[in-house]
Amino acid sequence: MAKRKAARKRGGNLGKKSTYWLYGLHSVAAALANPERRCLTLLATQQGAAALAERMAAPRTSGEPPPAPQIAGREDLERALPAGAVHQGVALLVEPLPATDLGAVLPAEGPAVVVALDQVTDPQNLGGILRSAAGFGALAVVTQERHAPGVTPALAKAASGALEAVPLVQVNNLVRALEGLKRQGFWVVGLDAEAERPLSALDAGARVVLLLGAEGAGLRRLSRETCDFLAAIPLHGPIASLNVATAAAIGLYELLGRARRIDSS
Amino acid sequence: MAKRKAARKRGGNLGKKSTYWLYGLHSVAAALANPERRCLTLLATQQGAAALAERMAAPRTSGEPPPAPQIAGREDLERALPAGAVHQGVALLVEPLPATDLGAVLPAEGPAVVVALDQVTDPQNLGGILRSAAGFGALAVVTQERHAPGVTPALAKAASGALEAVPLVQVNNLVRALEGLKRQGFWVVGLDAEAERPLSALDAGARVVLLLGAEGAGLRRLSRETCDFLAAIPLHGPIASLNVATAAAIGLYELLGRARRIDSS
Repeated sequence: MAKRKAARKRGGNLGKKSTYWLYGLHSVAAALANPERRCLTLLATQQGAAALAERMAAPRTSGEPPPAPQIAGREDLERALPAGAVHQGVALLVEPLPATDLGAVLPAEGPAVVVALDQVTDPQNLGGILRSAAGFGALAVVTQERHAPGVTPALAKAASGALEAVPLVQVNNLVRALEGLKRQGFWVVGLDAEAERPLSALDAGARVVLLLGAEGAGLRRLSRETCDFLAAIPLHGPIASLNVATAAAIGLYELLGRARRIDSS
Repeated sequence: MAKRKAARKRGGNLGKKSTYWLYGLHSVAAALANPERRCLTLLATQQGAAALAERMAAPRTSGEPPPAPQIAGREDLERALPAGAVHQGVALLVEPLPATDLGAVLPAEGPAVVVALDQVTDPQNLGGILRSAAGFGALAVVTQERHAPGVTPALAKAASGALEAVPLVQVNNLVRALEGLKRQGFWVVGLDAEAERPLSALDAGARVVLLLGAEGAGLRRLSRETCDFLAAIPLHGPIASLNVATAAAIGLYELLGRARRIDSS
């Protein structure tokens, strides 16, 4: 009980049934188009409703029909959302997506890249990682329940619609999940600023888990020991550290963006 | 006059003499160590002051000595800072850095990479780009005065100390600045999602300007026409767009991180 209260106090939406607001045209349009997403209330300014209609090329073809927009003033939206939220005139109250199981997401064989996060706690970073995963075609982002942020409006905004496109899979025990993936033919590549091998020199095959630790702390010992490879993103500038979402994006670029294009050209 | 008021209203610190708060251990420690940075007031909680002292390995060797910390409560810091600021117990009131001239920053010959931004307006993205520039060793980030955000606390926080390490150069006219760089032997590489050539297939030499446009809008016509090359970061996922700070980081990795390490191995 005390624990649940503490979780709420931290501003997360950790409970299964708790609702939260999405905002911004990308996030709201993507949620409205996602048949898996239960949408409760859509607030929009006149302008926001028009911009949203323009963006919604294809309506849902299955699932419960989403709510019609309730035209509201900017101040109504601002009352519902966190201070300073860049809402672009639209706000959508939603239920969390149904929990996803890794087994349901990953093909039994063939190429697949998954991002796993060891105690990355900043919602903005997690949102950014989801967005890059959606861009490069990673199949899931895995976090450990106890140490990951809940889905907050800031996370959803940074994800820019990617919450609807890439499953965010919360596992009980990250190391156990990684071991499971290894048994399914995945190699686990840990990003580590101290590693000698640059990421670009690595050939980890077609089934890869890209594992990142928290900024500063890096990978925990057990997570590190689970890795098949450790690799670094070489830095040469005056500040020898990257934002974790940036590091994840570069990892995905190296694994999924760069090489694939070369294969096909 | 009306114009200046509008600028203030947008929350920037566009005036030359206006002061602003930096916060977070990275940003504050970096500013205190930078002899170019005029620091006015340092507020710190007991814990923040201790963490800061631990981090300040080397004090300034030149410039005006920075202020001693005034021990304050969290609520004092929170009153001075934007809502929700992750201040880690330290806040520093500073004057803007002296304006920097591109000519003063770039070597007359030899390798150099510069980032140029065409109407990238989000302070968090600009801060993130500065941080990646500092990581990979780009020598400056260039923006056009009229269309760039002022240095806000959120920008400084996202830069995580990089404001002190990489000059943020504001120019009157971006295209003219690019033309000037071309005369100094730089090739201008524009990132463009529609370009056929992947960035990884490009050999733009040792003096490169990496040019990025705003998310969504992309490069403006005149900026695009100034480019020597257009190149894409290939995406294959369900959402065909990257955050602009992410795209900049991948560009810098390709130009400065990846290749350099291969040269030396």
